[in-house]
Amino acid sequence: MGTARTEIKYKRRDDLLIMQFERGTQAAGVLTKSKMPSAPVEWCYSLLKSDQGINGARMLVVNSGNANVFAGQSGRDTVKATVIEAAKLVSCRQKDIIVASTGVIGEKLPITPLLKGMRQAHKVLRPSGWKKAACSIMTTDTFPKGSHASAEIDGMPVNICGIAKGSGMIAPDMATMLAFIFTDAAIPAPILQTLLSVNVRHSFNAITVDGDTSTNDAVFLFATGGVTGHEAITRGGDRRLVDFRKKLSGVMTDLAQQVVRDGEGATKFITVTVKGATSPRSARTIAMAIGNSPLVKTAIAGEDANWGRIVMAIGKAGEPADRDKLKIAMGGHRVVRNGGIDPSYREAAVMHHLKGNQIDIVADIGLGHGEATIWTCDLTDKYISINTGYRS
Amino acid sequence: MGTARTEIKYKRRDDLLIMQFERGTQAAGVLTKSKMPSAPVEWCYSLLKSDQGINGARMLVVNSGNANVFAGQSGRDTVKATVIEAAKLVSCRQKDIIVASTGVIGEKLPITPLLKGMRQAHKVLRPSGWKKAACSIMTTDTFPKGSHASAEIDGMPVNICGIAKGSGMIAPDMATMLAFIFTDAAIPAPILQTLLSVNVRHSFNAITVDGDTSTNDAVFLFATGGVTGHEAITRGGDRRLVDFRKKLSGVMTDLAQQVVRDGEGATKFITVTVKGATSPRSARTIAMAIGNSPLVKTAIAGEDANWGRIVMAIGKAGEPADRDKLKIAMGGHRVVRNGGIDPSYREAAVMHHLKGNQIDIVADIGLGHGEATIWTCDLTDKYISINTGYRS
Repeated sequence: MGTARTEIKYKRRDDLLIMQFERGTQAAGVLTKSKMPSAPVEWCYSLLKSDQGINGARMLVVNSGNANVFAGQSGRDTVKATVIEAAKLVSCRQKDIIVASTGVIGEKLPITPLLKGMRQAHKVLRPSGWKKAACSIMTTDTFPKGSHASAEIDGMPVNICGIAKGSGMIAPDMATMLAFIFTDAAIPAPILQTLLSVNVRHSFNAITVDGDTSTNDAVFLFATGGVTGHEAITRGGDRRLVDFRKKLSGVMTDLAQQVVRDGEGATKFITVTVKGATSPRSARTIAMAIGNSPLVKTAIAGEDANWGRIVMAIGKAGEPADRDKLKIAMGGHRVVRNGGIDPSYREAAVMHHLKGNQIDIVADIGLGHGEATIWTCDLTDKYISINTGYRS
Repeated sequence: MGTARTEIKYKRRDDLLIMQFERGTQAAGVLTKSKMPSAPVEWCYSLLKSDQGINGARMLVVNSGNANVFAGQSGRDTVKATVIEAAKLVSCRQKDIIVASTGVIGEKLPITPLLKGMRQAHKVLRPSGWKKAACSIMTTDTFPKGSHASAEIDGMPVNICGIAKGSGMIAPDMATMLAFIFTDAAIPAPILQTLLSVNVRHSFNAITVDGDTSTNDAVFLFATGGVTGHEAITRGGDRRLVDFRKKLSGVMTDLAQQVVRDGEGATKFITVTVKGATSPRSARTIAMAIGNSPLVKTAIAGEDANWGRIVMAIGKAGEPADRDKLKIAMGGHRVVRNGGIDPSYREAAVMHHLKGNQIDIVADIGLGHGEATIWTCDLTDKYISINTGYRS
């Protein structure tokens, strides 16, 4: 991996990351469902259209500070030039190149400094430097995001390593923001694609900062096959993948939670669990209604046990719910049951919980067995000041 | 109408409104679709269940500061006691009494001061005092909301007069917050109900402050029949209602827009028009995605022509859209077309528009003929400070 400073937007830090992969590297990707995708996302959609992952990824190119969205033909030209330059650097096919951008929407991403940066970064390629790589893809992030796990396949240890960026414009229902995960296990692209798609639902798709969905969201999983001690994996259901699947899920959830912890202006990390809904999908919709409610989020920012706003959010979710069957707990303390306050409710205990920075909300809808957990953060005046001033 | 000070929450202002109607007053109502309705909303649902409006409303009782939601049996008991007291004051049936509450969720609404306040207000009943009435139903509102129009039915002038409250927890898809509209025309309840329901869609259901839907939303329309010069209206399609319908729509839109102008912490009034969508419903969904996006709202608060966030919001709406057919204008200035910036775009002109307090956004999706307009406000740090501290 190698980084460089293009000075396209940020003047004092590296803003370009390239990662070169060994021949035969397998890759899988999940991209934003936004109807206004960026030019790099369009390129990656064309690589992933078979739903079989990517057999033979050779380079990842990521720039931060400019999202290359809605820049018309010029945006597509920039992606094309990036891909051509990368293929030349690696001596590979254009379709072996994966491109991602993050930053301001609607400004032209200039080709010349980008290509120059790529050549510079290529000169300093080295097999380590994860933190530097994670830093180079940040925008409004306040800390670099990385996660690592070891897993066993067939008795052999393999590594799973991931980096991510994201802080605002974070919302569910797709891969959220940029995350890149790497393993030295030898797993073919179609299986990798399944592993990634399945796990996105409970990790990157289970977080929200502001309910706003980026035009550039992308999560990629690469398997470089550096570990050769295990026999080839040929089926997604292979029992030898049990540990790997679990560890991959852990890394993805860790990265997703780091994005929420770094939510723009956030001071509290909030876990919302909904159970007893009529289906898992219904539970998720209700959990997201709570997690996206500005009134719930400001109450928690204000450390106010204003549980009425949680009731309100459940009521507005549009999913089956019955006021008189609902139970709510905060920080493990029962708050609400039978359509009114729980007789055991002690506001002081909940207030004490809210003074912490890990907030737990559990809502039991009491109608079925659907369950979902999502993660979000509080909404503070700092979110406002960041976003009234972000572009300028 | 008469007001009183119960001192249940606010100590220094009137917080109770009663309005007594002549015999034969017809009424119509639209209530929140929240699955967690307040006890007063439940009572009103029982009055409105026939979908034929209310034939013979005699009194409206509204308190502010306590929403009477999620207070269990005690909440229902309070509504029942209110209805019994009101029916005694007017000498009418319990089902002639309409009740509404607004304020904090989850606290008990005490019966004794409420009934005492009702008796006090009943002693000072008078045929005028609209501003005082509008003030008595406020919570976080910063100004009282009222609207008036004259209409002609059958050549006779009739009056339409309305009051409303609302500032936060304002979201679409139902009657939003409290609004009460009155006319001295003689129109039977079923026709009134139709007139109200049809007009709610383009007025109270076309506004959003924060995407959060109240548990207590209610809009009522009363026809006291004080004007007797026109022949009875018996059909909703009666041509003599053309002017009335238009003026009623004007009063409802005016009240709804006043709620947005008084959006918590708002400094800008934003009109979002979406046209060229595949259907009116699709246009509305896209318009609401723009109007509810915290990133669009903070950009406008920051007077930043960050139109990329409008593109983002359209992209996330989940409705048919094509980046390369989209056109966006702000303040009448073309911004975006053909998947990129409009050649005529001058940022200075848009920046100048954003310095004002009336912001216009028009997005032409370019796919069909669906059109919708909604109204919203910007999102400022004052919204945060109001809502981190509202309950305490």
